[in-house]
Amino acid sequence: MSSATFDGMWADLEPVGKVGSGGYRRFAWTAEDHTLREWFALEVRRRGLDLTEDRVGNQWAWWWDGPGSVDDAVAAGRKGVVMGSHLDSVPDGGAFDGPLGVVSSLAAVDALRENGFRPEVPIAVVNFVDEEGARFGVACAGSRVLTGAMTPERSLGLTDADGISVAEALRAAGRSPESYGPDPETVARIGSFVELHVEQGRAMVDLGAPVGVASDIWPHGRWRFDFPGEANHAGTTRLVDRRDAMLGYAELVLAARDVATHRGCVATVGKVLVEPGGVNAIPSHVTGWLDARGADEEQVKALVADLAGRSGEHGATVTEESWTPTTRFDPELAGRLRDVLVGGTTDGAALGSDAELSVPVLGTGAGHDAGILANAGVPTAMLFVRNPTGHSHTPEEHAERDDCHAGVVALAACVADLAGASSAGAPGGVPSAGAPFAGASGSTHPTQGEAR
Amino acid sequence: MSSATFDGMWADLEPVGKVGSGGYRRFAWTAEDHTLREWFALEVRRRGLDLTEDRVGNQWAWWWDGPGSVDDAVAAGRKGVVMGSHLDSVPDGGAFDGPLGVVSSLAAVDALRENGFRPEVPIAVVNFVDEEGARFGVACAGSRVLTGAMTPERSLGLTDADGISVAEALRAAGRSPESYGPDPETVARIGSFVELHVEQGRAMVDLGAPVGVASDIWPHGRWRFDFPGEANHAGTTRLVDRRDAMLGYAELVLAARDVATHRGCVATVGKVLVEPGGVNAIPSHVTGWLDARGADEEQVKALVADLAGRSGEHGATVTEESWTPTTRFDPELAGRLRDVLVGGTTDGAALGSDAELSVPVLGTGAGHDAGILANAGVPTAMLFVRNPTGHSHTPEEHAERDDCHAGVVALAACVADLAGASSAGAPGGVPSAGAPFAGASGSTHPTQGEAR
Repeated sequence: MSSATFDGMWADLEPVGKVGSGGYRRFAWTAEDHTLREWFALEVRRRGLDLTEDRVGNQWAWWWDGPGSVDDAVAAGRKGVVMGSHLDSVPDGGAFDGPLGVVSSLAAVDALRENGFRPEVPIAVVNFVDEEGARFGVACAGSRVLTGAMTPERSLGLTDADGISVAEALRAAGRSPESYGPDPETVARIGSFVELHVEQGRAMVDLGAPVGVASDIWPHGRWRFDFPGEANHAGTTRLVDRRDAMLGYAELVLAARDVATHRGCVATVGKVLVEPGGVNAIPSHVTGWLDARGADEEQVKALVADLAGRSGEHGATVTEESWTPTTRFDPELAGRLRDVLVGGTTDGAALGSDAELSVPVLGTGAGHDAGILANAGVPTAMLFVRNPTGHSHTPEEHAERDDCHAGVVALAACVADLAGASSAGAPGGVPSAGAPFAGASGSTHPTQGEAR
Repeated sequence: MSSATFDGMWADLEPVGKVGSGGYRRFAWTAEDHTLREWFALEVRRRGLDLTEDRVGNQWAWWWDGPGSVDDAVAAGRKGVVMGSHLDSVPDGGAFDGPLGVVSSLAAVDALRENGFRPEVPIAVVNFVDEEGARFGVACAGSRVLTGAMTPERSLGLTDADGISVAEALRAAGRSPESYGPDPETVARIGSFVELHVEQGRAMVDLGAPVGVASDIWPHGRWRFDFPGEANHAGTTRLVDRRDAMLGYAELVLAARDVATHRGCVATVGKVLVEPGGVNAIPSHVTGWLDARGADEEQVKALVADLAGRSGEHGATVTEESWTPTTRFDPELAGRLRDVLVGGTTDGAALGSDAELSVPVLGTGAGHDAGILANAGVPTAMLFVRNPTGHSHTPEEHAERDDCHAGVVALAACVADLAGASSAGAPGGVPSAGAPFAGASGSTHPTQGEAR
């Protein structure tokens, strides 16, 4: 592949939504989001791909040279092979979480074309909207509404910190909330989905692996804890007369850590809103958001029940904003992709000299659109690219450029395998394992596309 | 007096800055603040008073019919008698804290004039800017900068939640930060200051008193606690690898309550900012503001030192944003005003049938511009108007209309006493006690003004 196309796209994205911290604030349906969507559309046009939007606003770039249209191919059992990720960020997030997957997918298309690959099924690159849920509180909103995992009514009614609803934000962005909703026609086009993502821990550093394959996503969810209080003057109200909503909140924060330690989970309170929020006013209402995850679903549920019970003693109400059980990615697909990556037909140097050892299969505590699609029945896989810092959701998250390029090579190899000759005649599902790899990493390897 | 003028002013102010909670958001140098300042200027023009602004932006309405100018009178030892308060609010504050003092002062001018009172010294009504400190964090900014208790450099550099500095806010309001600063000429005009304020507790309800006199303001201050952390992903970072800034903050909240109980003080954490503030991001920085007060200065200081020590174990830094020692209002002036109010020359029905018992002298845990002026050497007093709920800094704060009218009568009586014939020849200070009261409560009492 040409690393120049990757590097050029990366440079174009670099300033969008960058803030003083060095991190990014790219939130759904903001001006920054609009800029990112325009960037994606431009990259699609540059490649002569077919840009579509589903009813949620997710952007899809289709590569299909026929015969017939994409829908004709789908009707004929040639469902698409889709890559992609998201472009939005958490507050002060890093540059890689999301954009690495989108940029790598476009670069993989370039690499496949440079190698003369001719897909037997349509290939697409998707940019999912509002993956992080940073503005409206529910992660993976774009894929959830798309697949029906969240109703449009619930999504449209979610509000940001300024009280602006998703419906209002859509209108402000020039879109129509009336047409917002699940889109089964779009979902039906997806034969398989591969999301490439920067790793969010340091496991691959220890293993010396630039690229890995995901096994599953831990069960995870978000809960809103609302603590009631009574606003009053901080100087003139006796302690015994107070109902200070902050006290129950503070106990939640400390209990969350204790209980998570005890139960082998992770729990975080990363966002809080206080009313009225004045230095000299006793808080009348405090809302805290709990993020809880763990390898064991029962332990996570027990953690939340325990915290809900304790907070209930302060009169708090607890609302489950999202809950995703353990998501197991398609084991056959994961195994197949790992076989492709260790099969020696890719650039061995790019994936490490001992490929067999260096393509680990890993679980993750992070949610992804890939998990939503997997739960919707789409054969789904994820590739991880090594993160030397292990940091995530912070400006320190990183991937070395060589590893990014290795990720593109790996992604192209996987997609070539899935969309190559053997995939024809495998209607409605993942092509069977064992198809020969259509190399995409260098002109010294004749590709399947060239060979046909 | 005519209660119609009071009621009319109250009705005009009612909608300004009102929010969904039923409370008010009237913050310094905002559009709402501008509307309130325009309202004040209009009321001043309606009365033919002389409107001036000092170098901070506090508004002064002067009533002086000569001989000579106000400055001539001051130069001749006839310093002014000043009433007033502020029009800004805490977030979701009530209608009374501040505006009651300004409206009552204007109504007192009306009452004095209706009774034909002719002041021997200039009388003024002041509207202090930014008393609550709701936007920029430091209370009584208008009187602090005026008197030199806060430098203009420090004030101009304070920022609001959006990072906008006072200097930028002044420019946005069409004002010049370059001329912002202490104004000794204005301070020199103030012979005495009386601030009427809604009571912020329920002491006067229990005493059956519609109006009281302040003895002192508790020592009080604000401290900013900055807890460091490290942003990271809430799902993929092991608990043992975390540096979560929220944990130290939560311990501060709980410790503040415990230590305050132990030391007989009050302590409140009513405002918090979290970075990056995402549900799925470990907090990298949490800033909490502590408000602490108490009758005993040493106990308040010990409380803060104790909390600073505990927070220091989490790496927190503690910054004193404001500190005001015990403020004792001029005891001679307080006694004189109480004598006026119980002396029987006011409308006994308005102040209660047993006036001697029903004009209590009270301390308060709330800071006021009156306290800043008292600390600057101005003979200062405060009158309190009964608050049946005892609530403060909330929409529930209240004063019955009859009590408000009683407050106007009391304020007018006090000002008549201070600005009456005996005040001439008492250069530079408060006139001596024992001056005959210039009644202002009804035409059946011949006033001193009419008598002269």
